[in-house]
Amino acid sequence: MDKDNMKISMAVIRRLPKYHRYLKDLLEKDIKRISSKELSKIMGLTASQIRQDLNNFGGFGQQGYGYNVEALFEEIEGILGLDKHYNTIIVGAGNLGQAIANYTNFEKAGFLPKGMFDINPKLIGLKIRDIQILDADHMEEYIKANGITIGIICTPKEQAQSVADRLVKCNIQGIWNFAPVDLNVPEHVILENVHLSESLFTLSYLLNHRDE
Amino acid sequence: MDKDNMKISMAVIRRLPKYHRYLKDLLEKDIKRISSKELSKIMGLTASQIRQDLNNFGGFGQQGYGYNVEALFEEIEGILGLDKHYNTIIVGAGNLGQAIANYTNFEKAGFLPKGMFDINPKLIGLKIRDIQILDADHMEEYIKANGITIGIICTPKEQAQSVADRLVKCNIQGIWNFAPVDLNVPEHVILENVHLSESLFTLSYLLNHRDE
Repeated sequence: MDKDNMKISMAVIRRLPKYHRYLKDLLEKDIKRISSKELSKIMGLTASQIRQDLNNFGGFGQQGYGYNVEALFEEIEGILGLDKHYNTIIVGAGNLGQAIANYTNFEKAGFLPKGMFDINPKLIGLKIRDIQILDADHMEEYIKANGITIGIICTPKEQAQSVADRLVKCNIQGIWNFAPVDLNVPEHVILENVHLSESLFTLSYLLNHRDE
Repeated sequence: MDKDNMKISMAVIRRLPKYHRYLKDLLEKDIKRISSKELSKIMGLTASQIRQDLNNFGGFGQQGYGYNVEALFEEIEGILGLDKHYNTIIVGAGNLGQAIANYTNFEKAGFLPKGMFDINPKLIGLKIRDIQILDADHMEEYIKANGITIGIICTPKEQAQSVADRLVKCNIQGIWNFAPVDLNVPEHVILENVHLSESLFTLSYLLNHRDE
């Protein structure tokens, strides 16, 4: 990848998984080739937006001939880093942590849940699928011993920053945070948040301002 | 609300729940007043961004005196529609649906989970907290009888569109969709998506392009 990639906006980056999802659907339907116009229709983007987005990564289309679905899918898999495996842990083994542990689609995409951690003695020792819930006290040694690169934080908000601090000290590369709090992490650690309440409250705003 | 609100961008709207969250934290810490400069520091926005955002809704600050935390919090609660109650149902009572049913914070914010629906006979009849899992066949009558305004879709992607169609026919006002698919709903129905995979894949992209 060249330096130009530095300029790729987060808006474009956040659309890549959407391309990935649509191309995967097309592949499953055995569609071999698609024009940017057709792709734009099903994705709800403009054809020019799609061409611009993909040009950030070198294009891939042939004028007047459209995109090779499988080739484009594989390119985007690679760009997203989905051609690799990531060892992950889930910190906080409550309902949300368990839901994520049970979500086999993440595993199929290469995000391997290696262990779960909690402080609740009632949870420690249980298994979700074949993922054991371990004592949070042993998190640091586990991360080091198992080459964990991504930590998924599913704790209450009060614990989330201290969990993040511990993950950072263990040289974790990325944090996927579900706690409703903005975490402070050093710049070299990638932090991605899922703030469910913010999504629900946006829905609520839109419900209340429909007729304006 | 006047017509000017039509122009409020989604970017501003999506920041409102964040203001709400930070102001709530300040209230819990018993902080009565905050300058836009201080608020900008803790929120990671610029002070001028904050003033601009809040000006969309009439301002609320006094020059040189800052914001009254409680008053601003209550204003934003109202703008977000969090001063009301919403009867909701969860469709799909698997792990994710159960996690959401267990998430009492949504209930505290006024989103009351009235029932859950599934097609799996092993789940039908079970209770999550005091929320019963019902047969999806009875969804329509339940929605009408219980004044349900929001449907939360936690089904696999294959079922999501047909569930959405059924919700729309029952005059549901809003859909909070967790299925990894873009749903087609009429314009008057508010659709808010949580695409967890897209968030995870964005993290993966950023992990793989850290050094560019």
